[in-house]
Amino acid sequence: MTGEITALLRADLRGKSPYGAPQLDVPVRLNTNENSHPLPEPVAADIEKALSEVVRGLNRYPDRDALALRADLAAYLGHGLDATGVWAANGSNEILQQLLQAFGGPGRTALGFTPAYSMHPIIAASTGTAWIDGRREADFDLDPAHAAAQIAAHRPDVVFVCSPNNPTGTALRPEVLAAVLDAAPGLVVVDEAYAEFARAGTDSALTLLDGRRRLVVTRTMSKAFAFAGARVGYLAADPAVVDALQLVRLPYHLSALTQAAARAALAHAGALLSTVDGIKRQRDRIVTHLTGLGLRVVPSDANFVLFGGLADSRAVWRSLVDRGVLIRDVGLDGWLRVTAGTEEETGAFLTAMDAVIAAGQEQRQ
Amino acid sequence: MTGEITALLRADLRGKSPYGAPQLDVPVRLNTNENSHPLPEPVAADIEKALSEVVRGLNRYPDRDALALRADLAAYLGHGLDATGVWAANGSNEILQQLLQAFGGPGRTALGFTPAYSMHPIIAASTGTAWIDGRREADFDLDPAHAAAQIAAHRPDVVFVCSPNNPTGTALRPEVLAAVLDAAPGLVVVDEAYAEFARAGTDSALTLLDGRRRLVVTRTMSKAFAFAGARVGYLAADPAVVDALQLVRLPYHLSALTQAAARAALAHAGALLSTVDGIKRQRDRIVTHLTGLGLRVVPSDANFVLFGGLADSRAVWRSLVDRGVLIRDVGLDGWLRVTAGTEEETGAFLTAMDAVIAAGQEQRQ
Repeated sequence: MTGEITALLRADLRGKSPYGAPQLDVPVRLNTNENSHPLPEPVAADIEKALSEVVRGLNRYPDRDALALRADLAAYLGHGLDATGVWAANGSNEILQQLLQAFGGPGRTALGFTPAYSMHPIIAASTGTAWIDGRREADFDLDPAHAAAQIAAHRPDVVFVCSPNNPTGTALRPEVLAAVLDAAPGLVVVDEAYAEFARAGTDSALTLLDGRRRLVVTRTMSKAFAFAGARVGYLAADPAVVDALQLVRLPYHLSALTQAAARAALAHAGALLSTVDGIKRQRDRIVTHLTGLGLRVVPSDANFVLFGGLADSRAVWRSLVDRGVLIRDVGLDGWLRVTAGTEEETGAFLTAMDAVIAAGQEQRQ
Repeated sequence: MTGEITALLRADLRGKSPYGAPQLDVPVRLNTNENSHPLPEPVAADIEKALSEVVRGLNRYPDRDALALRADLAAYLGHGLDATGVWAANGSNEILQQLLQAFGGPGRTALGFTPAYSMHPIIAASTGTAWIDGRREADFDLDPAHAAAQIAAHRPDVVFVCSPNNPTGTALRPEVLAAVLDAAPGLVVVDEAYAEFARAGTDSALTLLDGRRRLVVTRTMSKAFAFAGARVGYLAADPAVVDALQLVRLPYHLSALTQAAARAALAHAGALLSTVDGIKRQRDRIVTHLTGLGLRVVPSDANFVLFGGLADSRAVWRSLVDRGVLIRDVGLDGWLRVTAGTEEETGAFLTAMDAVIAAGQEQRQ
């Protein structure tokens, strides 16, 4: 950036780097928690048809309120929701940005328990919301009393919790969410981007929505729905929260193409979500295999696994890239995160890991 | 909105209404400056093909940097631009939001000359940027010395000018832009959403980009390209400005569908822009006809016309709706704005205006 423009930039942005996972052209990409399965043919054909139906009318603005899509999303979520309690945007990032524009912003604070989704503090910064870095326990878990105490001490306007958490992978325990809801004076946003991959017995925070007006549950079609390229995030909340977001959303934010494609995909929810069980099997396979290699592995309810006990996690990451496998260095020293891919991709990762571990015992702490 | 949620909302948003033109189901809609012409069949077919090519791969994230689309937009704009000097987002509203997130925000100011595009102050508010309402002359024109004096007095971080201006329709005179650029200490954003409709002899601010690092020109595919439903806005600027926006853009903000559709449309720029001459003829027809009715008509370089001299503009607006024609009350007492539609739509509007004027001379000031 030239000096003249740097001088005009906001002081808090100067010297920063754009957010984004490093992208490398390697055969096996397990770094961004994508769903490795391309869309099934009948689903793709119906999406093409839905897109064709809107292409000739693209000269007109889309439905500003995306009401039909919101009704479809509500029907998918169940729990008695309807369009008035659901909102959609270009990825859950835009949902989070709108929430902070309305309920955070200058003079206000947001608290999240790091390590968690790394966009939470970044979006807080870009909306002028002061970020408070909450603390997890040593095993990445949250202790109900400790979480509540931190909220009581800071009284943040917005609290973020992820369930399952990214990058650690574990779902929030019900008693932690209960403590957070009790302690928080403002909005509590439960980021459930990976909810569909949770292990049996893990309830969604959607079960708690009724009667809890300050609870917001965010979701995405990027992961379980294999729809990352279409950018569809959404939330469920009290209709008053949805009304509030109308004051900050950009008019016509969601294109006619996005609305049509998402509705066609939701009509095939069963077929799209049929990959979820297979991905969970690959995830559990990773957990078992890496544990067998003597590594520390965090229990996962998501489509990825965080593993540690690595003396030099950066060197392991690089060795894997050299073997054609890209995973994610999430900035936690000694730990790496890998997405559960197809059976073949997962096999390629585990084979590469076997080789990396065999090549250098010094890589284990 | 329930009291509990209102209490959590930012104080500056309480009691506000969402932005958006009133939508009514009437036969002739000339209220949002859409292009009334559906996409030509060969263009639509190629867009369908481009969309089909990305549908099966929607499980993967889109190109985060939208490099191919930015190169295509640069080629369309010309003036020696390449992808490094062009940025794209979901409508020019998102472009404007990103500009204010990077160069405006808390503790900073933006100045625009109202009446102008009504989203400028709204996006300023939602990004925490203080808004300064600059003044136009009585005929809606800008005087170079007066514009420069206002900028010198307030020293805003960002100045917005529209060329052509919305809702007045007139292009910025070169001497005004020169004075604004000289006076402004920060970014100067020239909003050229309607540039393709300018009358002969009106230069784009793109001609001034070379060597002026603080100049930003924003554009949209919504109007001349008849692509409002696809939500594609873009800007041309110094590459350092584009780099700065990477610090605030949401990662993967532009879907694979949007990128593919926009590239296919740009490949048919000639066919899509072939509607422009016809729309300009309808615009000029509106100017001539309304002038003939004795109304005050602002000269237009856009695809709409602002007309006044109405004693009760709200009553005229309502009478037109009763006759099946929806135009826009832009909140200027005595004035209304109408989009130049197809020959038939424009004819329907003019016929309705004839009837409204004939029905009540009291409606003229």
